[in-house]
Amino acid sequence: MAVDNKENIKVFALGGVGEIGKNMYVVEVNEDIIIIDAGLMFPKEEMLGIDKVIPDITYLLENEKRIRGIFLTHGHEDHIGGLPYVLRELSVPVYGTKLTLGLVGHKLTEAGLIEKVKLVEINSNSIIKAGDTKVTFFRTNHSIPDSVGVSVHTSKGAIVHTGDFKFDFTPADGKHADMQKMAQLGENGVLCLLSDSTNAEKAGYTGSETSVGHKISDVFYESKGRVIIASFASNIHRIQQILDAAIANQRKVAVVGRSMENVVRIASELGYLSFPKEQIIDITEVPNYDDDKVAILSTGSQGEPMAALSRMARHAHRQVQIKHGDTVIIAATPIPGNETSISKIIDLLFRAGANVIYGQDVVHVSGHGSQEELKLMLNLMKPKYLVPVHGEYRMQKAHADLAVSVGTPRHHIFLVEKGDVIEIKDGHARKGSKVPSGDVLIDGLGVGDIGNIVLRDRRLLSQDGALVVVVTLSKGKRKVLAGPEVITRGFVYVRESEELLVEANKVVSKVLDGWMSNQGHEWSSLKAGIRDGLGQYLFEKTRRRPMILPIIMEV
Amino acid sequence: MAVDNKENIKVFALGGVGEIGKNMYVVEVNEDIIIIDAGLMFPKEEMLGIDKVIPDITYLLENEKRIRGIFLTHGHEDHIGGLPYVLRELSVPVYGTKLTLGLVGHKLTEAGLIEKVKLVEINSNSIIKAGDTKVTFFRTNHSIPDSVGVSVHTSKGAIVHTGDFKFDFTPADGKHADMQKMAQLGENGVLCLLSDSTNAEKAGYTGSETSVGHKISDVFYESKGRVIIASFASNIHRIQQILDAAIANQRKVAVVGRSMENVVRIASELGYLSFPKEQIIDITEVPNYDDDKVAILSTGSQGEPMAALSRMARHAHRQVQIKHGDTVIIAATPIPGNETSISKIIDLLFRAGANVIYGQDVVHVSGHGSQEELKLMLNLMKPKYLVPVHGEYRMQKAHADLAVSVGTPRHHIFLVEKGDVIEIKDGHARKGSKVPSGDVLIDGLGVGDIGNIVLRDRRLLSQDGALVVVVTLSKGKRKVLAGPEVITRGFVYVRESEELLVEANKVVSKVLDGWMSNQGHEWSSLKAGIRDGLGQYLFEKTRRRPMILPIIMEV
Repeated sequence: MAVDNKENIKVFALGGVGEIGKNMYVVEVNEDIIIIDAGLMFPKEEMLGIDKVIPDITYLLENEKRIRGIFLTHGHEDHIGGLPYVLRELSVPVYGTKLTLGLVGHKLTEAGLIEKVKLVEINSNSIIKAGDTKVTFFRTNHSIPDSVGVSVHTSKGAIVHTGDFKFDFTPADGKHADMQKMAQLGENGVLCLLSDSTNAEKAGYTGSETSVGHKISDVFYESKGRVIIASFASNIHRIQQILDAAIANQRKVAVVGRSMENVVRIASELGYLSFPKEQIIDITEVPNYDDDKVAILSTGSQGEPMAALSRMARHAHRQVQIKHGDTVIIAATPIPGNETSISKIIDLLFRAGANVIYGQDVVHVSGHGSQEELKLMLNLMKPKYLVPVHGEYRMQKAHADLAVSVGTPRHHIFLVEKGDVIEIKDGHARKGSKVPSGDVLIDGLGVGDIGNIVLRDRRLLSQDGALVVVVTLSKGKRKVLAGPEVITRGFVYVRESEELLVEANKVVSKVLDGWMSNQGHEWSSLKAGIRDGLGQYLFEKTRRRPMILPIIMEV
Repeated sequence: MAVDNKENIKVFALGGVGEIGKNMYVVEVNEDIIIIDAGLMFPKEEMLGIDKVIPDITYLLENEKRIRGIFLTHGHEDHIGGLPYVLRELSVPVYGTKLTLGLVGHKLTEAGLIEKVKLVEINSNSIIKAGDTKVTFFRTNHSIPDSVGVSVHTSKGAIVHTGDFKFDFTPADGKHADMQKMAQLGENGVLCLLSDSTNAEKAGYTGSETSVGHKISDVFYESKGRVIIASFASNIHRIQQILDAAIANQRKVAVVGRSMENVVRIASELGYLSFPKEQIIDITEVPNYDDDKVAILSTGSQGEPMAALSRMARHAHRQVQIKHGDTVIIAATPIPGNETSISKIIDLLFRAGANVIYGQDVVHVSGHGSQEELKLMLNLMKPKYLVPVHGEYRMQKAHADLAVSVGTPRHHIFLVEKGDVIEIKDGHARKGSKVPSGDVLIDGLGVGDIGNIVLRDRRLLSQDGALVVVVTLSKGKRKVLAGPEVITRGFVYVRESEELLVEANKVVSKVLDGWMSNQGHEWSSLKAGIRDGLGQYLFEKTRRRPMILPIIMEV
């Protein structure tokens, strides 16, 4: 690698800052573009009908030739979920650990892309040449195994991305975070650190995953009936501990829920889960065992209505129904926005007669480090510059405040939005220009075709529905041949609103008459007149504003 | 009052059980019907376009002649918000404390009902004759002053409703809960207790309101700039402490937000708030003072986008903009469901440069008692039967478990849903028949006209929009005179989807041709054919399912 003291270094985020989700970070060293992660985000409440959101990669498409690879920190959706879409447009190699690539491979196979993509397996000791730039890795602890941080080496120090991390000194899989490597990086010089801000507002330390294992074992021991445990499918540490607890307490384990079944399969094939084959039984075999000899591992820990746990609670699951005597462990805390659905499912479970372990007694720890751990990372890395990432603005800000308390000068900390470029030259950083960035909404098969106009219309329709007014006019003579006909959905209950709709029809007729007596008018003014007149009438009568769609047919 | 050992006693809820909101409870003693509270509920997420929800009062309308009055426990919306609707249909007197009636009066005046309603002021010592039944009251602590519990006396003991309560031993207004009266009721015999389950899942005690006052004073003292504090308008204790802290720290107070201005006005007129006149300044005068001499009391503590705090944060408020150096106190915790909007506004405030006090450091205590306080109430009242109310099912269940731990026999505790009647005869209670109950949805001016069909349609429209297909046919000859014309909203971005819509048109034409060549077919089968054919085509192409509205005009 040429030692060039005048490297042009750029660091920016295309997703994952000012938001939680769709992480995508870019480090440029001269002509080498290194992408870190390519995640998706689940739609926000106001994104009606939208399935997923991915980062706008316009900049990457414009600079495709310089991209050396996508380096994945770990296998969570908000870090790999965007790959099927990104890899349709970019032909670049993808680097990741074994488990991460196992999950990616499954995704790309489903998307029909597996043949076209070059997947390169790395581990925490790998050294990758990305163009002229050296990239290395270091192991971290997170709520999924095989997670790494990424270091991009330059002559003035490393640009380090922590990935998602916590410090778990008693990790469930025995794989400790590589603090020695982190300390070494700090010793050699970290020019810029991009660090996980998710729990920057939380004081103290995040608990160890093994503490959860102990709690689960206690519940398996004490419960007199079946134990159903709902967890994030991706938390393989958690699944391993559940299996261990089951073995220790002579409970067979049945797995329900597609994503859970997938993860258990992939993880055991790749060696990330280990258990005696006979420990796992099919869900249909559950009735063959005494209740206190059974545990059910299920999806639906966020109260998702279509996932297994909710269906079992509502007696809508073909094989399992929640019954009196069951103990249900919700081994998760609400992802922001999901509080209501989790609340609902807890209610449903109680109504179904279960004893539910949740809330204050929750059997769960976060996968993200709290304040003390973020400060520990800063002390190990001793970065010259800090860019708090993976968080809403307030989390980035809280992280910045932590760094100041640790000794990082305030002007060496950058609170960036998507697209803000940090330019580092000769070891000095400053905020540079912006690159294109934004949200790309995915609805069904459409990628990016839904924008503000369509969303605005969906919002209006969701509030007061729609009213369609159709009139058939004769060409030229402007005689009304048919209609006006008024059809409505989502506005009023038609059977009980006949009078209102009859009156509405009269209002339209009046507008029509007025328009026809005024020769030379365009249809556009007729439509506007109908919208205004009818809109005003309906608002007076109902205080509602349905979307009004006037349609003129000409015969 | 005749002593009749064979009183027919019924106890049930028309709202407020299995949910938080629209509290309405009914106690019947022979021919006397006593209603306790008449609240509203804010719409749940899936109730698109709905403004408010009130209880179904069919039962009360059918038995109007027996209703002796509506007895209000306190002035919160979920206890009085339904009155304007209920009192349009029922002519019954309303009993409440001075502040409660002050807030009710304001509401009825806005609804044009004030002349028609008999409002009777009571205090905690009042004795009311409701038909042949004696009703008394006792003071409680809550997050609004002048809150009471209600006792309905029978020969076998009292039916007691706690209202919303906590036990605050250092109440901000110095008005202690009347524990002596509660103990006396327990001594004389409480046949059945309806008790507030809101915080039944929370261990320990709820903190005292005065602890919040201390924190506020500290913040007012330490902040170098302006302090903006957002609080529930109804929490008059809180407002008093804010005013006291302002006086102690030489800060003038400006009040922003309509509901806050209303409450401050009503509460001070009635003597529930006291402050030197010059302590409160108009919002327009704020720039005339140094930043550290100003406090702003604002609405919007739940992140409501239209309330003052959000507008100030977005620089959309005419008089005040949040600026760097401001300290903002969010003196509230999220009402379940509001977590996302509070999260958003905290982010907005940080971006605007404010220092925000929230989350772990929140300056707030609940108005509802936690587990120890609920057990205290049970120990004071020593009820024979318990009906946990004011809560979701899981809160009612947690409350039941608490009562069992205190010594109440499990079979003496009733977990009721709306409409479940508890019949008590000769001192013995059992679950009886049901009365009609349910949700009445209010949208604009319409009360109860929106039901499942309209909501389902709004939901469909919100997901994938609508596609309207219009065809004009000739009478009889079934010739296509105009169309098909396809108009769409909320489905695709029209300008970029021309090809799709052209193809969609062809699909419809094909269906039309098929239908016309098949003589004797009804329009209904043509419409069905269009819906199916077009629906299938669009789903194949887009994986979306817009609502398809075929309209046939006949000329």
